[in-house]
Amino acid sequence: MSILVGEYLFRRLKQLGVGTVFGVPDDCELALLDLPPKEGLEWMGTPNELVGAYAADGYARYKGFGALVTTFGPGELSALCGIGRAFCEFVPVVHIVGYPTTASQHSGRILHHTLGDGSYDIKPLHQDVWRAFCATTVLKNAATATAEIDRVLTEDVAYSSVPAAGLDAPLYPHIISDPDTEAAVVKEILAKIEAASSPIIVVDGGAGRRDWVPFVDKLIAAAQVPFYVTTLGKGAVNETSSLFGGAYCGAGSPASVIQAVEAADCVLWLGNLPSDFNTGMFSENVKTANIVDFQRFSVSVGQAKYATSITHILPKLVTGIQKSGALASRQQSLPPACTPYLVPASETLTQDYLWPRLSGFLRSGDLVVTETGTSQVGFLSTALPAQASVWTQAVYGSINYAAAAAVGASVAVKATGDYKRIVIVTGEGSLQLTVQAFSILARHGVPCVVYTVERYFHGFEAKYNDVPLWDYCALFKAMALNVPRVQTYKVAKTAELDALLNDATIREEAVPKLVELELVYGDAPYLLRGLFGKK
Amino acid sequence: MSILVGEYLFRRLKQLGVGTVFGVPDDCELALLDLPPKEGLEWMGTPNELVGAYAADGYARYKGFGALVTTFGPGELSALCGIGRAFCEFVPVVHIVGYPTTASQHSGRILHHTLGDGSYDIKPLHQDVWRAFCATTVLKNAATATAEIDRVLTEDVAYSSVPAAGLDAPLYPHIISDPDTEAAVVKEILAKIEAASSPIIVVDGGAGRRDWVPFVDKLIAAAQVPFYVTTLGKGAVNETSSLFGGAYCGAGSPASVIQAVEAADCVLWLGNLPSDFNTGMFSENVKTANIVDFQRFSVSVGQAKYATSITHILPKLVTGIQKSGALASRQQSLPPACTPYLVPASETLTQDYLWPRLSGFLRSGDLVVTETGTSQVGFLSTALPAQASVWTQAVYGSINYAAAAAVGASVAVKATGDYKRIVIVTGEGSLQLTVQAFSILARHGVPCVVYTVERYFHGFEAKYNDVPLWDYCALFKAMALNVPRVQTYKVAKTAELDALLNDATIREEAVPKLVELELVYGDAPYLLRGLFGKK
Repeated sequence: MSILVGEYLFRRLKQLGVGTVFGVPDDCELALLDLPPKEGLEWMGTPNELVGAYAADGYARYKGFGALVTTFGPGELSALCGIGRAFCEFVPVVHIVGYPTTASQHSGRILHHTLGDGSYDIKPLHQDVWRAFCATTVLKNAATATAEIDRVLTEDVAYSSVPAAGLDAPLYPHIISDPDTEAAVVKEILAKIEAASSPIIVVDGGAGRRDWVPFVDKLIAAAQVPFYVTTLGKGAVNETSSLFGGAYCGAGSPASVIQAVEAADCVLWLGNLPSDFNTGMFSENVKTANIVDFQRFSVSVGQAKYATSITHILPKLVTGIQKSGALASRQQSLPPACTPYLVPASETLTQDYLWPRLSGFLRSGDLVVTETGTSQVGFLSTALPAQASVWTQAVYGSINYAAAAAVGASVAVKATGDYKRIVIVTGEGSLQLTVQAFSILARHGVPCVVYTVERYFHGFEAKYNDVPLWDYCALFKAMALNVPRVQTYKVAKTAELDALLNDATIREEAVPKLVELELVYGDAPYLLRGLFGKK
Repeated sequence: MSILVGEYLFRRLKQLGVGTVFGVPDDCELALLDLPPKEGLEWMGTPNELVGAYAADGYARYKGFGALVTTFGPGELSALCGIGRAFCEFVPVVHIVGYPTTASQHSGRILHHTLGDGSYDIKPLHQDVWRAFCATTVLKNAATATAEIDRVLTEDVAYSSVPAAGLDAPLYPHIISDPDTEAAVVKEILAKIEAASSPIIVVDGGAGRRDWVPFVDKLIAAAQVPFYVTTLGKGAVNETSSLFGGAYCGAGSPASVIQAVEAADCVLWLGNLPSDFNTGMFSENVKTANIVDFQRFSVSVGQAKYATSITHILPKLVTGIQKSGALASRQQSLPPACTPYLVPASETLTQDYLWPRLSGFLRSGDLVVTETGTSQVGFLSTALPAQASVWTQAVYGSINYAAAAAVGASVAVKATGDYKRIVIVTGEGSLQLTVQAFSILARHGVPCVVYTVERYFHGFEAKYNDVPLWDYCALFKAMALNVPRVQTYKVAKTAELDALLNDATIREEAVPKLVELELVYGDAPYLLRGLFGKK
């Protein structure tokens, strides 16, 4: 049996969990895009390629794999920023690039979307990010696999035929981990915990968070030790537990958290990712000797590094802790009370009031996407209910991600049948870049518009930190003409926020909403002020 | 005397004609951006990097040189599509990329905007597009120039000092052209024109149009032969001349134009750029033997190619024609009448009615920016007044350019003291990508929203060709809160368009305007229908 190369590609993507393909088509891709519906895949066009790349990223984070289709040249280049972000946090996204027909390429004529110099060599920068291109190495005839998939990227070849049998082989081999190494590592970690007087767990966001998060609540339940989250770790764990001690981000953290984390003599650090934004600008201060560092392809106990993985070790560690007599007999230790949240009752809306106050708005099942900058830091002071998730980016830090990634998240959530309300917390600076994402946020979107963090860097009053004044409520409506109803709210006073959050209409789920929050000029969350040594 | 490297860079840019620097700053660039005002340069922040890159391109097309500042990583990658476009049409734009301090780069720590892998090697694809980086090779100490400018890209080094004397040396040497070759070429061209029975001129858009356009009206005045424009040539020449024969774009052109151009026995082709969109999808049919092909670094007479340039040859050719007795005694030949414009008086608005009708709206001095797709093709049927200019891109073809490039054009026009009304003619598909450009089009902007061309390719009814329904009038207003007044109009009927264009208020110049045109679904300009063999 033979099938088209394009069918082969989309069928493979379906095997990987892709149900919706995002992107911006051009004439090179149009014939290719007749294929996804035949393979049971949906198409969702996005306003531009950057929104499309982030949507594929958001989709992949929730559903495991994302796909983006653009044209070569302008489309390919416009998507690169979003593809870089996916690479940065191990999010598997395939970018399918449509090229002119082989005959056109060999004609030497000047086709549109080229640079006009006869060259078609507009290749993505980081070719190793294309995880799905690696997948093509398991095509049945290995000798021709690379050439075949290069050819898949041209519309004409996508309509050539290839053998279908390769689809029966699995795409990914499992990571190999040596059972003896695993046993030794678990034993050493157990000994370290048993010997410690103040062990804690720090839930971070590295090492492919999605893969190991299912084990975290079990680890905490077994270990019964205080646990903390980092910026990237927030949302991975149940914060309503009495063992939850708060968010640790170095010098900006509440004093009680700094004290508890930095004095701990054993820190089980899950997915440690020491980027500047994730560490309070490198102000964390925990001794390596006290850390058990769980990573994607290694686990380190103090200075000793072992070739195994967080996903292999965590389940076995849970079992080990449950069987440990020493730990069973130990008294449970609770974290110090964390009351960092200043709530000044001013008339105008402050950051210190906003973030803790948002806690009451969130519910179990919510998926919150916060933006790099104010909302990312501020949200560390928002208490999460159980079973709520948070996404944010503390490495790539590309402001404009939240609204666009939420597009993909909405689609993925709907596809899995899970109910999730998507709550986007973003800033006016970020919306400048990808505001058109509003137009496809027709489900469950509650973007909260807040002031940007930029003024907390150099140039507080400088013109280059100004952004144009927009009417976000009007924009949200103007981009939702095909949505039966949307709700928008503008809030500038503390009392207005309280009234809104107490109002039942804000909780009406079927209606997309936008809340524009006008906060005090130049204000910042206390964690951020702390990092910059202000107030 | 020594100055900061950053000062050196901005002073150089000022020497090149840059008065405004566009971009999106991040913490890496903030200190650098304190420098432009000190050097007498304005800063204009743009909603995103793509809009910024196009704005710098639009500025450079009008004023000679453009500058863009972004951060590395996300900002750099997001600008690439626009930089590729500038490269494609020889538009000099310098992209200044802010990097973390050298110390930070050497620290090995994971900084935001990196890919989290410890590498800072996020370089633009086409490094040779950075024409201003080439300019740095004339820094006084040539041995260190490259290193110096590489270091300028990092905030800390921008605040180091360097000798200022280099600024006295001119940046560009002139192109060398051999006088004997020039004389021989002019003589051969003259002989070819004198021997021809039906010589014509085709005004195209290649070879750096801005450099040779000043000679074109003189050439036509001297030669007194019929002239035609291509898609890229439109707007370079006075179309009110009795010698103007219309637009030639291959098979889609009016029959009279095809006949006249393809039967001509001598075609002076200025800046020939044979891209698909500029040639009616390669349907042009003019014999090479009959063509004098004027290019940036060559002039070809029939099959013979000479090493000289269009800018060297044109002025001498004008003089040669003026002195030619053979040509002086010849009778003037007028082009055939061109009446291709079908104007059906339907109630709903059609493409064939719209484009000729827009002619009456344009005035001397207007700068029109049309978008790849419908508006680019349709506008070939719009008659231009004298002294009006048109920009469009028929090579790179990245839909989303027009509105964003107009930002830079507005600024450049204002800076030069020339009055120009900027008229943007774009489509809803294009606005999906860079709609945020509206927010800084506070002067002279008249975007006309029309249907996209995409449905004239494969997949007329396909879902992947849908774009969300937006309220463009509301968007324009919502993004112009800091503008005292804007005007918006929505037009769906022929009579409404007539009424609007006859209304004096549309001509009020100080007020930015948007006209949303709702055209018949699936309609296309007749030139486009012709190319696709429809109707």
